[in-house]
Amino acid sequence: MSASSYTLLADDVLTLDAAWTRYSPGAVGIEDARISYVGPPPAARTGTVVDLEGCVLLPGLVNVHTHTPMWLFRGLTEDVPRGEWLAGHMRPLEARVGPRELRAGALAGCLELLLGGVTTIADRYSGMGEIAGAVEESGLRAVVAHSLYDDGAERGLRESEALLERFGADPERSRVWVGLGPHATDTCGPQLLRQVAALAERSGARVFIHLAQSEAEVATVRAGGYTGCAAYLDSFGLLGPTVVVAHGTYLGDDEADLVGRRGTAVAHCPSSNAKLEGRVAPVARLRRAGAVIGLGTDAACCNNGMDLFAEMRTAGLLNKVAAGDPTALVAADLLRMVTSDAAATLGIAHLVGSLEIGKRADVIAVDQRGPHLQPWHDPVANLVYAARGSDVRAVFVDGQPLLLDRRPVRLDAERILAAGARAARPLAPVGVAR
Amino acid sequence: MSASSYTLLADDVLTLDAAWTRYSPGAVGIEDARISYVGPPPAARTGTVVDLEGCVLLPGLVNVHTHTPMWLFRGLTEDVPRGEWLAGHMRPLEARVGPRELRAGALAGCLELLLGGVTTIADRYSGMGEIAGAVEESGLRAVVAHSLYDDGAERGLRESEALLERFGADPERSRVWVGLGPHATDTCGPQLLRQVAALAERSGARVFIHLAQSEAEVATVRAGGYTGCAAYLDSFGLLGPTVVVAHGTYLGDDEADLVGRRGTAVAHCPSSNAKLEGRVAPVARLRRAGAVIGLGTDAACCNNGMDLFAEMRTAGLLNKVAAGDPTALVAADLLRMVTSDAAATLGIAHLVGSLEIGKRADVIAVDQRGPHLQPWHDPVANLVYAARGSDVRAVFVDGQPLLLDRRPVRLDAERILAAGARAARPLAPVGVAR
Repeated sequence: MSASSYTLLADDVLTLDAAWTRYSPGAVGIEDARISYVGPPPAARTGTVVDLEGCVLLPGLVNVHTHTPMWLFRGLTEDVPRGEWLAGHMRPLEARVGPRELRAGALAGCLELLLGGVTTIADRYSGMGEIAGAVEESGLRAVVAHSLYDDGAERGLRESEALLERFGADPERSRVWVGLGPHATDTCGPQLLRQVAALAERSGARVFIHLAQSEAEVATVRAGGYTGCAAYLDSFGLLGPTVVVAHGTYLGDDEADLVGRRGTAVAHCPSSNAKLEGRVAPVARLRRAGAVIGLGTDAACCNNGMDLFAEMRTAGLLNKVAAGDPTALVAADLLRMVTSDAAATLGIAHLVGSLEIGKRADVIAVDQRGPHLQPWHDPVANLVYAARGSDVRAVFVDGQPLLLDRRPVRLDAERILAAGARAARPLAPVGVAR
Repeated sequence: MSASSYTLLADDVLTLDAAWTRYSPGAVGIEDARISYVGPPPAARTGTVVDLEGCVLLPGLVNVHTHTPMWLFRGLTEDVPRGEWLAGHMRPLEARVGPRELRAGALAGCLELLLGGVTTIADRYSGMGEIAGAVEESGLRAVVAHSLYDDGAERGLRESEALLERFGADPERSRVWVGLGPHATDTCGPQLLRQVAALAERSGARVFIHLAQSEAEVATVRAGGYTGCAAYLDSFGLLGPTVVVAHGTYLGDDEADLVGRRGTAVAHCPSSNAKLEGRVAPVARLRRAGAVIGLGTDAACCNNGMDLFAEMRTAGLLNKVAAGDPTALVAADLLRMVTSDAAATLGIAHLVGSLEIGKRADVIAVDQRGPHLQPWHDPVANLVYAARGSDVRAVFVDGQPLLLDRRPVRLDAERILAAGARAARPLAPVGVAR
């Protein structure tokens, strides 16, 4: 028995692996950061026993598209007309904060994610070199990408190389690893995308890019002589299983088919797409065509939170409406989109996303005893349509407890929230009620 | 100072009255079940001082369409094809429970609502005579209606009269009062609707009915020679400000205009409509035409919860998508739909729905300190798009504390949940994971 050995006991265990097994009651054993046992409560309980009575154990949730520092901006860009959000509202706000504020926002954002049972994030933002330390400090598993634009491309590429130097691009070797983050198809020209493709090839890093998120983006790419944003990316070899495209809000049918045919990973961000664009991305078509799909909350200021439970529910309801069919995206599909499928979009399905012996011990316990989660007839439907981030009671990442009894184990929540609020204060709007 | 006198102190107070004033910090005074003060923290604090540090005070939320006993069925009717839900799934389940189970479900449902900051509900179900006692016991403000069908109409009308005898139809005189509950336009023929209209006239009770919720309902009414469900109701004088129609999922433009033109109250149930039908009701058109709109969660088994915070967020996102416009239903609209506008749909806007001196003291405190609600730049946007039922810290109804520090004051939560779970147990599906 070692300090990194645990036996977690709970009323229910959902493996969410291919066999989709339920043990009730059940247990998960942890040895040296990996899952060593999944099954009914064992007679021999190794290590520290953690009694999670009234809880269901799941693999930790994977948020495939977010921007943690934008925690600072929650509530500042509300219900604005289509096409105005980024340039008209976000960019001026972003110009008012520096690296110190962004770090404080990122750490507060990670705390929010942790409390909601998220154990892995794909995080991207400008100045990631200065932010990644905060993400690392949080204890979350994270792939981090520095946003690249034509404007300042050379410097951006140098910062990406420095990040690669620091963290590497291999999720097996480091809890925080690096992706490449060209911003979008209208802000990255052919030269930059060719450089990104070459660097991806050389480093093995995945590429993360916003795709067809807005009408303006589509118009800009078409004005450049391409049939659409997906075709544009494809011309640089930047569609495929090692590329994660976010949003796809305005992908036409042919484009969605192309994205899917290449086996591209898609970060579906339904709340953000609905709130900023009044749209639903063509998820059903992308899936049929072969895309791997995970859910992303996008940033706190366009959602307005980073709760993957809310995101599952929202994805389900919006996609049922988009399809005009209540059987579109059933509960099990939605749960996979924040666990096994989400892990696959980030290329880490062999490491996390299900409870299987040998995988990294990223495990969460969700309290099933609240009156909004009873009766417990159908654990999957309850988790997808009725649970909230606040039902998460415990979180383990790499076998280490980060949250127990809803209290952060390593992070000083009070200090982090105070620092975040202080960093955000200069941005506060003037006036009484809005 | 009396035992029913309180001064609530909080970081923020949102009045949500016509002036839409914010006091931060602020206070609400309560004397004998009514609001006696709203403003900055007063020098003289009468009665018991309740320090709600870190909270925002709001009027209690009003859920204009729900079926509390159906708490029992959460998770049993998931992702089923359009048109199959009610007859194919719900009715067979309902046949397996009796009054005792329904009472247990109703009380557990009320506990769920209370913990989510709901202080008033419009509840309707078959056998309301046997359920209303549980609703009354919960301490919630409630208008209760017994569901009427052609099948058993005479008995149903007698039960409605008995309920009227017991609770009356006047929300000023009784915290629980009675509405008339013809089920829907396809299950209530002309004779029954004429009897309902006459009883409404005689008793002063409001009428609650499901309207154009499903394709089958529309087809049945049209087969009877009517142009649509709304025209059918209108022919009996059953559209107007004292009638609350739920759903309206399949209302055509002309019908929505008719509903609105009569000033009808509409219970918009966006989660239920999306989940069961893959549709969004024509809310924008109804509002433009003059309808008063409140939000309803519908039952726990078609949502899958009764959280009005989730419902605001869902209503916003779905209606933005339906309109193809991110400015459709802004945050303030959505907050009114669970407070002042919701109270108006039930005819109790003079009693509750805003924090104003002389109104009934239905007040809730929402904790604003969670990392998912910080920064607190925009209280309204945070409450609508980021808050969850679990952020509610205190609830007062008629000036009586029902929830303090998230603990029910009068209800024995453990006993109620155990009884609810026991009542639901025979319904549990067989099998491992679903």
